[in-house]
Amino acid sequence: MEDKEISQAVIGRLPRYFRYLGDLRDEGVERISSQELSELMKVTASQIRQDFNNFGGFGQQGYGYNVDFLYKEIGKILGLDQTHHFIIIGAGNLGQALGNYMNFERRGFIFSGMFDKNPDMIGKEVRGIKVQPMEAMEQFVRENDIDIAVLTIPKTGVVDVVEKLVANGIKAIWNFAHVDLNVPEGIQVENVHLSDSLMKLSYNFSRYMKEKERS
Amino acid sequence: MEDKEISQAVIGRLPRYFRYLGDLRDEGVERISSQELSELMKVTASQIRQDFNNFGGFGQQGYGYNVDFLYKEIGKILGLDQTHHFIIIGAGNLGQALGNYMNFERRGFIFSGMFDKNPDMIGKEVRGIKVQPMEAMEQFVRENDIDIAVLTIPKTGVVDVVEKLVANGIKAIWNFAHVDLNVPEGIQVENVHLSDSLMKLSYNFSRYMKEKERS
Repeated sequence: MEDKEISQAVIGRLPRYFRYLGDLRDEGVERISSQELSELMKVTASQIRQDFNNFGGFGQQGYGYNVDFLYKEIGKILGLDQTHHFIIIGAGNLGQALGNYMNFERRGFIFSGMFDKNPDMIGKEVRGIKVQPMEAMEQFVRENDIDIAVLTIPKTGVVDVVEKLVANGIKAIWNFAHVDLNVPEGIQVENVHLSDSLMKLSYNFSRYMKEKERS
Repeated sequence: MEDKEISQAVIGRLPRYFRYLGDLRDEGVERISSQELSELMKVTASQIRQDFNNFGGFGQQGYGYNVDFLYKEIGKILGLDQTHHFIIIGAGNLGQALGNYMNFERRGFIFSGMFDKNPDMIGKEVRGIKVQPMEAMEQFVRENDIDIAVLTIPKTGVVDVVEKLVANGIKAIWNFAHVDLNVPEGIQVENVHLSDSLMKLSYNFSRYMKEKERS
């Protein structure tokens, strides 16, 4: 069913469907039509049908989708039926925020270790996980079946850390450092460039203000 | 020069150009061709030229772009030549991380206030800014020329807070809450849905592992 290549744009929209369906499910909604979902999510019904057709369509279009079924199916597609262990590199505020975020665990992402190069941070606890020195990272990744590394360190340390992670079998990196990563084929990277996001907001804001001044 | 509507895809790429040009500038590079920039950024040279043509092209294609000029021009387009005051709603780890991030200030974003509904947080200091109770937010926004609100609160509180922010003249919202916002026309919103980003990583990772198993 998932044999053809699916565009990253479609994949980028799946978590949003998952989020809305999870809310509907929590509210006790059992069925929803693509039209209703379209109004709720402010995307066209045809977009929704096209997106779902990438995964076989999830059937039942005549009388709407079964919310619980659709929620679980999209969860499976997203790999959320599996458990993934992750470590956080960088125990600053952002690393701590991510470590403390309980929802990740509900989705099967298990916070398993935390590392920092600052000696003052070592031994500090974040949700029951003790911060360890960077020197302990490589062995920990090898011995604890760690799939995902979360990078919340300044960009200066990134190249060295990524090399070590990859050499020790990490398979995915969630990157918050302000730099694009160079990784071998097969290592998955998802970037969250917070500054880029703020600049995009700034652009839209500035443009709107300039237009208002002119009119 | 900026009269035509520019697609959000192009705008989304501007901060990345800005980041690379800033690094080149810091390294003392004076000129760069679209070909060199293309190799560095791993996008096609024609993509770069097309993107830049939205803003008049920045000239000098024959012997390359002037790095400092291009950096400053893109900065202006992004509105970074202006000063914006922002407040953070939600003084948890994520709010603190964003408040402590010095780079925002370098870009003209001035951290001006922080609010939380948890009485234990009131009076706590984040980079010299005292956390205030939520009740003080509306007056503060009105009286301190606040353009941008950063939302780092759980989704349950969002509707009420956004209503108050909009009523008191906020113009842009950087939203980290796990919910899409409903705002009037003219209010700019940029979402950072961290869970969505992690799920996208999970999808790409799961798919790769399944393909490897099959082959």
